[in-house]
Parts: sequence; structure tokens; C-alpha cells
Amino acid sequence: MIGAVGFGVFSEGFGRPRVGFRIGDGVLDLSAVGRDDVFAQATLNAFMALGRPAWESVLGRVAHLAASGADVLPLEDVTVHLPFEVADYVDFYSSLEHATNLGRLFRPDAEPLLPNWRHLPVGYHGRAGTIVPSGTPIVRPCGQAKVPGEVTPSFGPSRRLDFELELGFVVGVPSRLGDPVRADAFREHVFGVVLVNDWSARDIQAWEYQPLGPFLGKSFATSMSAWVTPLALLEPFLVAPPKQDPRPLPYLRAEGNWALDLELEVELSGTVVSRTNARGLYWSMPQQLAHATVNGASIQAGDLFASGTISGPERGSEGSLIELTWNGESPIRLGDGTMRSFLEDGDEVVLRGRAGDLTLGEVRGTILPARVSYSAGNGPAR
Amino acid sequence: MIGAVGFGVFSEGFGRPRVGFRIGDGVLDLSAVGRDDVFAQATLNAFMALGRPAWESVLGRVAHLAASGADVLPLEDVTVHLPFEVADYVDFYSSLEHATNLGRLFRPDAEPLLPNWRHLPVGYHGRAGTIVPSGTPIVRPCGQAKVPGEVTPSFGPSRRLDFELELGFVVGVPSRLGDPVRADAFREHVFGVVLVNDWSARDIQAWEYQPLGPFLGKSFATSMSAWVTPLALLEPFLVAPPKQDPRPLPYLRAEGNWALDLELEVELSGTVVSRTNARGLYWSMPQQLAHATVNGASIQAGDLFASGTISGPERGSEGSLIELTWNGESPIRLGDGTMRSFLEDGDEVVLRGRAGDLTLGEVRGTILPARVSYSAGNGPAR
Repeated sequence: MIGAVGFGVFSEGFGRPRVGFRIGDGVLDLSAVGRDDVFAQATLNAFMALGRPAWESVLGRVAHLAASGADVLPLEDVTVHLPFEVADYVDFYSSLEHATNLGRLFRPDAEPLLPNWRHLPVGYHGRAGTIVPSGTPIVRPCGQAKVPGEVTPSFGPSRRLDFELELGFVVGVPSRLGDPVRADAFREHVFGVVLVNDWSARDIQAWEYQPLGPFLGKSFATSMSAWVTPLALLEPFLVAPPKQDPRPLPYLRAEGNWALDLELEVELSGTVVSRTNARGLYWSMPQQLAHATVNGASIQAGDLFASGTISGPERGSEGSLIELTWNGESPIRLGDGTMRSFLEDGDEVVLRGRAGDLTLGEVRGTILPARVSYSAGNGPAR
Repeated sequence: MIGAVGFGVFSEGFGRPRVGFRIGDGVLDLSAVGRDDVFAQATLNAFMALGRPAWESVLGRVAHLAASGADVLPLEDVTVHLPFEVADYVDFYSSLEHATNLGRLFRPDAEPLLPNWRHLPVGYHGRAGTIVPSGTPIVRPCGQAKVPGEVTPSFGPSRRLDFELELGFVVGVPSRLGDPVRADAFREHVFGVVLVNDWSARDIQAWEYQPLGPFLGKSFATSMSAWVTPLALLEPFLVAPPKQDPRPLPYLRAEGNWALDLELEVELSGTVVSRTNARGLYWSMPQQLAHATVNGASIQAGDLFASGTISGPERGSEGSLIELTWNGESPIRLGDGTMRSFLEDGDEVVLRGRAGDLTLGEVRGTILPARVSYSAGNGPAR
């Protein structure tokens, strides 16, 4: 399907949200297919839970409709919604280059890569309830941070707001509590992929994250594609993954080509500031799913698993500003001549992904000024 | 209401789940109250989202029904379900004694309390989808861990399975993304409390948790009371909280008495192994909620916020085995003469909480043997 983007949820005027398939700048209304119980719905969850045979059958129908010139609604005439109700959100840390860069920046006196990193895909749970679709404005978060040199923390709007370029996969078919999902069962459970911008307030994160991990530095908002690209359409772009050394434990061995040859770019207020490719990720998606469930944790329709920031080895291939500007020490220049260390109010970030003729749903977000509600007795201004 | 426990969801025979109120060993069927849209439901979420005036009105009705001798169903004749659909699950670390003990055990060469601990309630997101109601058996998780002295990690069933005694609060009324929930708005948003057993595999946790926090060491299962005790019933047991030094930033200042005088105990296979009280927690529930939302993160009906392990200063008041046995170095003796360092297959853990005449829904769970599914080529056995 030339121009296929993926499944999503849209509405017209004051009409009820329903499921559609985006092709280029148009949306195919899937309520024409029947099955109101899955397509006349405000989320993709019911459809995604049907499983692979149903997904393939509907994709075939979509291809047929597209080829036969069925009516599509212009994208600009519809309202696009969050495509699925996010159940649990897990964020990994699966780019070797990103983990190395962040280790250097956050723990300058220690080995950048911790001893566990090459043995398992490190991950943690993020906040599912603050995941928003592309186009949602992002309010600059406030919080505690400790300015270097100060003895006590102070409160205020984050001064080190960042983006993170990530690839996420979405679960359709659930598993049973107590039973791991093997790496080779990935295709039976996973419906598709999205791009993810895991907005990060680096000053809040640096002060709060030990010992239990990121919390408020990330939980204010996470942006996601409004369209979920089905895994089936990405099969032609699966390629050999990077070599892993040491060889992972048996439960982390995924047969086949599981690196995704997906070209990625980040545009910041009109200037492309990063170009990279998802195929360089050290830990693959089936490895991530196998790891996250090897303890018997169950999965359900709407679970989102994101890769962590995707950074490449070259300058200009880093997926976050903290890496691109090396913690603000080397600001980057935008096309209009202005410099950026971190995000400024009014900045717009757009993530894009492309595999051959296939385009993933972009992720767009503009930074709004902080809503400062605790000004009195606040200690030193930051 | 003498013997009141709280709201939950139950079914009879093959009947549909619906909302009830537990009083002692009986359940009052709330579908008698009318409002099928909130009470003839499989979760409390719709009821909890109605807000405080509705909660108080229904509680009044419940008290009237109880006083007038309305029929109650014997608890032993009904099936009890998860009381609400858990949206996001946040776990704090708000006991000074527990954080100090864990710091000593996990980082023996450093200060036990990290610099941020007294400035903010440290917390992280857990897995909402694996929260189960009291009575659900817990399968011993498998995973990676590194045996001290070994160079590489190995895979197998956890050998250091633990419980954690916690108090959780449940959100009813949502907030808007971008707007913090002030500490003094706690009563407008929070419906009630539950006991929580945050099962923990200490060997998996120790190997995986840096730098992004606990993941598989916790995500296999978390047990929760099947009955939610409304906050309104606990008002008489709110007492003065411990003094905080240094004084927290303005957004963390909660007026009034916000420590809960709740006696707690942990029974392990028939022997009470820990007795403590929730009133000693350093960070209060309104402080936890204010902190978790100060960055603009929104909340929704069904969000669960747990305290973290509740440990007191005395021997025998610690809320986890790793503390009670000091990492297994000092096993405890049960009533039948057997010793425990960590949980064994077949062990049953029961958490109980009581405030005056009011009993919280207990949390009961029995450990089932691991389902080992990756035996081949596994490296050294553990």
C-alpha cells in the first residue's frame, strides 16, 4: 500500500471517534468494513486484541479498499485522537551509544556502562496516563532540582528540558500471569509500532533518579504517533541485528532478523538536528518483550514498550539534546541562527521515521511556558 | 458502622460482578441502591470518579442499610474480584527506617540515605497490569541474577523472594494534564486506601536495578486488598505526623494531621513476624500526591499510590524479610520451629491493618513453585 501509515482513531466534527487507516494525507474509514464492536470504537484496543489472523485479514481488506479507490477523508478535515488506551508503559535503554553517553554525563567518575547492561535490556516503567498523541502541546514541567554548588534544592520550571527519539511497540494479544512470552512468540502478541518522544527534564531527573529511577523528570508527558504501523508492513525492513557480546542467556536469544531498518530524524523548530537509524539498537524488540515477561509478568492489549533514546555513533546521530549539546556545553545552531542547549518555550519538536516507501506517524509537540503555581517562600530562584 | 471494611466487587455463582460493601464477614449488595451505571459494574472506577459528595451520600446510605438490618451475603458464598481497574501504579519509599535499612544492605560502602531523600518523597512507577487481589497465588519468578563471586549472571527461580508491607491510596477524581494537585486537595481526589504487598525478588532486583530502578524484581505480581476502605471512615484516626527536618519546599507542606494511626501486622505461614504502625511514615499521603503531580502529571480514577515498605525503628517492626533477617544473615524462627531467611514455596503471607474498630481488607498470598521454562544451556545452576 503506497503511502500507508497505519491504524488510528479519528472523528469528524462532533461525531464519535472511530477507527481508521491513514494512507498519506487521507484516512480510510474502517467502519465501512463492519464489525462495529472493533471499528466503531474510540480506541484500537479491541481490534488489537483480536490477534494476528484478524489483523492480516483487515490489512488485506484495507489494501483492497485502497487499491479500488475507496473514498478517503482528507486528514486535515478530521480530528485525530490517542490511538489506543495505554495499559502499561515500559521504557528500555537499548541503545549502546545512548547508554554510554548518559553514563558519562550522569556519572562522570565511573564506568559509563554498568555491569548489567550487556547482559539484559535495562528498562523501567513510565507513566501510562500521561501519554499523549502527536500534536498535543507540552507544558514545561516544574519541579525540584539542585543547582550545582547549592546545598539545598530549589523549585521552579525545568531549565533543561529535552526530547528523546524512540521507537515503541504495542501489544495486542495478552498473556497469562505467571507465563513468560518467549522471544519467538513476538509476532503473535505485538500489533505494531509507533514513534515516541519521551520528554525529559534533565535537571529534575538528575536530582531525583537515585536509587529508584526516573520519575517526575519523565512523567509529565510522553508523546506518541497518532497512527500505529502494523508489524506486518514492516517485515520487508527487518535486517540482521548488531552482534551481541557476550552472547545473551537462552531466554534472550531471538532467531531471525530483528533489527528494523528505519531511518529516523528529529526536527527542532524547523531544523533537522539529528539523523539516525533504528537498526543500530543493541537490544531487539523480541528480546525486550522476552525480558519484560521472563519473571511471569503478564501483558495486555495496549501495553507500550519503547526502545529508549536511539543514538548512533556519529556526531549528529544522537537522539537527545543532552547528547547533541553534550550537557549544554556545545550548543547547536538552528537554521534561523539561534542556539539551543535545551528546549525553549515555543520550540516545536517533530520526530519522523521512514522505511522504504513506508512512513511512520510523526510525533509533533510544542513547548508551552510553565504554569508556576508555587512562587511564595520558594527559596532561591533558579 | 461496626465492622466496616470497605467497597469491593463480588459475584455469586455464574452471576455478573457488581459492587458491594463488606461489613465483617458479610457483603452488602449495592445494586439494591439503584444507579446500575456505577454499582452494576465489574470495577469501582465509575463510582470512584463521581467525587466526594457522591461518596459521602453512598456511605450514608450504606450506614443506614447496615443499621436497619438489611440482608448481607455471607462472604464465604461470594467470589471476590480485583476491586478496581488499576490505571497507573506508583510506589514510594517513604519510611525513613526502611530506606535507611535498604541503603545499608544494597550500598554497604556509602551513606544509606541518598541526598535527595529528606527533600522529596522518592518514588517510581510499578506495573499496574500485574496487580492482583488478595487470595491470588503468587508464582515464584525466574530471572537473571549474579551470585556473589561469579563473573557472569545466571538464570533461575529467585532464591530471595520477599514481601513488602505497604499502605496504598486510590484516586477517584481525575486531574487535568499540566495542572498540579495541591496537597490540600487530597480529600477531593482520593477515594480510599488499601493494603499492598509489593512482592520483591531481591536477587533479581540487586542485579537489575541500576541505573533505572526496580523492574523485574517487582513486576511479576503485586497483591492488594480486595476491599477499598473509604478515606472518610479513617478520618478519626488521622494523627500528627513525624517532624520533618529540613522543612519541605512549599508545595510539599500539607496542613493538618496526615499520619494514619493504623496498626499493621505481617503473618508468615501462621506466625506473626512483624508488627508496626503506619503513623511513623516520614512522608504523608498528601505529600506523595502533591509531589507526583507537581510536574503537571495528571491522575485518573484507579491510580494507585503505595507508601513503600513500612518499617518501624524497633526489632520486629520491619516490613520485609530482607530487613527482618538482615539479608538472610539472621533467619527468623516460625511457630512450627522452621527457620526463614526468605520465602519458601508454600509459604502464605497475610497483611492486616486495623484502626480502632475498623479493619482494612487483608492481603493474602501463597507462594507457588517457579515455572521453569528455560532450562537448556543455562550456564551454572543457582
